[in-house]
Amino acid sequence: MLRIASREHPYVKYLVKLQKSAQLRKQSASTILDGIHLIQSYLSAGTGFSAPRSIIISEAGQKNSEIISLLDTCRQFPDTCIYRVTDQVFEKISSVKTPTGVLACITVPAVTDPSTIAASKLSNCILLESIQDPGNLGTIIRTAAAADISDIFLSRDCADAWSPKTLRAAMGAHFLTTIHSDCNLLEIAKHFHGQIFATALNGYQALYQSDLTKPTAFVFGNEGTGLSELMLRAADKTIFVPMPGKTESLNAASTVAVCLFEMVRQQKYGFKA
Amino acid sequence: MLRIASREHPYVKYLVKLQKSAQLRKQSASTILDGIHLIQSYLSAGTGFSAPRSIIISEAGQKNSEIISLLDTCRQFPDTCIYRVTDQVFEKISSVKTPTGVLACITVPAVTDPSTIAASKLSNCILLESIQDPGNLGTIIRTAAAADISDIFLSRDCADAWSPKTLRAAMGAHFLTTIHSDCNLLEIAKHFHGQIFATALNGYQALYQSDLTKPTAFVFGNEGTGLSELMLRAADKTIFVPMPGKTESLNAASTVAVCLFEMVRQQKYGFKA
Repeated sequence: MLRIASREHPYVKYLVKLQKSAQLRKQSASTILDGIHLIQSYLSAGTGFSAPRSIIISEAGQKNSEIISLLDTCRQFPDTCIYRVTDQVFEKISSVKTPTGVLACITVPAVTDPSTIAASKLSNCILLESIQDPGNLGTIIRTAAAADISDIFLSRDCADAWSPKTLRAAMGAHFLTTIHSDCNLLEIAKHFHGQIFATALNGYQALYQSDLTKPTAFVFGNEGTGLSELMLRAADKTIFVPMPGKTESLNAASTVAVCLFEMVRQQKYGFKA
Repeated sequence: MLRIASREHPYVKYLVKLQKSAQLRKQSASTILDGIHLIQSYLSAGTGFSAPRSIIISEAGQKNSEIISLLDTCRQFPDTCIYRVTDQVFEKISSVKTPTGVLACITVPAVTDPSTIAASKLSNCILLESIQDPGNLGTIIRTAAAADISDIFLSRDCADAWSPKTLRAAMGAHFLTTIHSDCNLLEIAKHFHGQIFATALNGYQALYQSDLTKPTAFVFGNEGTGLSELMLRAADKTIFVPMPGKTESLNAASTVAVCLFEMVRQQKYGFKA
């Protein structure tokens, strides 16, 4: 176990930058998992995920039994560096208000080229265009994993799926579905073998009148402006969530939840069953 | 129009404190609406809402045509003070990253004593126990308004429904439904004439097997720990959202969206229709 007591240590500086910079996360193909729950989710996900690059523990964290057991798991990995840092150093690196005392630096899983996946048989998936809020994106990933969506495709201008905020909101769901960043959604849509439903406030068909028992790709747009014209045209149909109240719209993540769980319902009870 | 150029002006200090302090918001029965959209929603809501106490405009905001027209509306109210402040002063008061240049200080609507309402005929409503995150709470209020829920009851330890973050997330939905803060939820449940469904991960009945065409009160619990034992026992039934994926749970606001829009679906297409 390596010890770091200085906040000016180059590795500390690197980790602080990794928390903040989407560019560095992309360049280094890595990110930080902050807290016991996220790291446990990562370790138990298995296939597709390698051993953590490093584990960073605070002095306080070393007294936590869950962290001790997590450390025992990580000691099995010969290529995982384990760092013990002072509480002050830990606080500098951690992005959460009340740190649990453990961080992991991991390799962001490399995903297959979406064009090759799209050509093969994808099951139900979602396409996200320009989702800006990392909290929304994380919540969407969590919902998608709960609804057993296999693949999530993100346009280039979406928030970073691997940012600390997104990871926190998704509560470990990143490791239960496949996330494809920086996608050309039009290309994905072109190759998808099933039906493509784009959600829009002024959509053509009510969600509940849409047969979701067939392979479906849902397309969701930006929180403020919705989907682009090009994306709307690339869909087989535009659909809307009927809203009996007087509000204009739902939050993006709420719309995703309503659509995906209507699909879950239909898969179990049939369309109009 | 009154002009304020000093960041040390007592009214500026008061507004800054109002943004931050739930206690002051409660004591003064007031809150701040930040931005054009929220203020427009407030002004168009009508009944139950009085004229704003004050409108605060930045120098930059005075050039915005939407703000000018909003100001014209507010000039009709004899008891609304209008303040013009420097951009520096405005930035000090505003809680958003990119201020639109207009704020309103409003009276938080006084709601009828819940015990008298509960005794009368409430339609579909939701009971929220210990929802901690203001963003979640705001999203829930937005979803409830879209689903035409008439009343939202909050336990004493919920996040403040009238905080800037909650207001921002709800996007004006506060003015389209009735929010009852600081409630004794057990009392509300006792007096509710319809069925009470408490949501729990290990609930007794699947959401989709529950008849939601009758008057229903949904009870939702804390993001981490769920509902208290007492609240679970106060419900007629515990229900769960079936999740085919491998995740443990949905975000609280996503659970609300799934439940309320299943109710919307059943209201339109019938139970098992």
